[in-house]
Amino acid sequence: MNLYDLTVPQLLKMLHNADAWLVAATKHAEAKKFDVNHLMKARLAPDQFALDRQIQAMCDNAKFIAGRLTGKEWPAHPDTEAAFDQLRTRIAAVVSYLETFKPDDFAGAGDRKIVLPWMQDKWMTGDEYVAEFALPNFYFHAVTAYAILRHNGVELGKRDFLGNVPMHS
Amino acid sequence: MNLYDLTVPQLLKMLHNADAWLVAATKHAEAKKFDVNHLMKARLAPDQFALDRQIQAMCDNAKFIAGRLTGKEWPAHPDTEAAFDQLRTRIAAVVSYLETFKPDDFAGAGDRKIVLPWMQDKWMTGDEYVAEFALPNFYFHAVTAYAILRHNGVELGKRDFLGNVPMHS
Repeated sequence: MNLYDLTVPQLLKMLHNADAWLVAATKHAEAKKFDVNHLMKARLAPDQFALDRQIQAMCDNAKFIAGRLTGKEWPAHPDTEAAFDQLRTRIAAVVSYLETFKPDDFAGAGDRKIVLPWMQDKWMTGDEYVAEFALPNFYFHAVTAYAILRHNGVELGKRDFLGNVPMHS
Repeated sequence: MNLYDLTVPQLLKMLHNADAWLVAATKHAEAKKFDVNHLMKARLAPDQFALDRQIQAMCDNAKFIAGRLTGKEWPAHPDTEAAFDQLRTRIAAVVSYLETFKPDDFAGAGDRKIVLPWMQDKWMTGDEYVAEFALPNFYFHAVTAYAILRHNGVELGKRDFLGNVPMHS
């Protein structure tokens, strides 16, 4: 399986899904007459990232995956978002970045040496990075963001998490 | 990337990680002097699966992924677990099942037509199934189980979620 096919289209879909979760939360807040930005610092445990940081980490993981597997630069985002609309802008920026990639960019990506910031002089292959670090970590933050919203009463279901899945006939 | 490499070893690792989360919860309950099985029905939202069902779904997704991609039968598990030690036995059963697979079993898996129970006469390819349904769904239940435990004070961190990652030198 080509690492482009395994990553970029699915990351794009999940980012669009996450944007829709934020829209659903905004509608929920309007209906309940509270400021949706009260959810920015909602968290499931006091020593866990809040919603804002979960969305930021989800965005970062998506851009890191594409950038690291292809050896391309990624845009910097300083984690200054203080409101839902700014989180949505952050998501849109990463969507735009991911949309610049083509399958050919991922030639040889599976064998590329990936060095994460905390690995010092160690490395893993691109294949290992995708299977054992990148996707688990991306979904960790995506699911936690979704769970924080569900825990706070936002009406979301599994279909909102997954988005549309392929159906051929 | 071979679909075996992308799935079986990582699913096995995540199942072992989940078993360790249950052990950590048991130790936490002993220290706090409560029955760990009080956590079986803990959930993050009233209309979301509780911990027991999250672990069962994580186990089911793992066996479905290997079984569907290879066309092999999977063992039936009737979701009757009523205590933590039974959830651990369920995890161990799926670990044993996954350990029977070899990379050769996955020859042609990416092009295999996968029909999920709710798809009627539609289908997706094995590659699409892994990228857009199987892994997102597996991690959905894994992260939610982890989040329920974190929300209830069990001392876990990202490293417990990911487990060991490859480090070559």
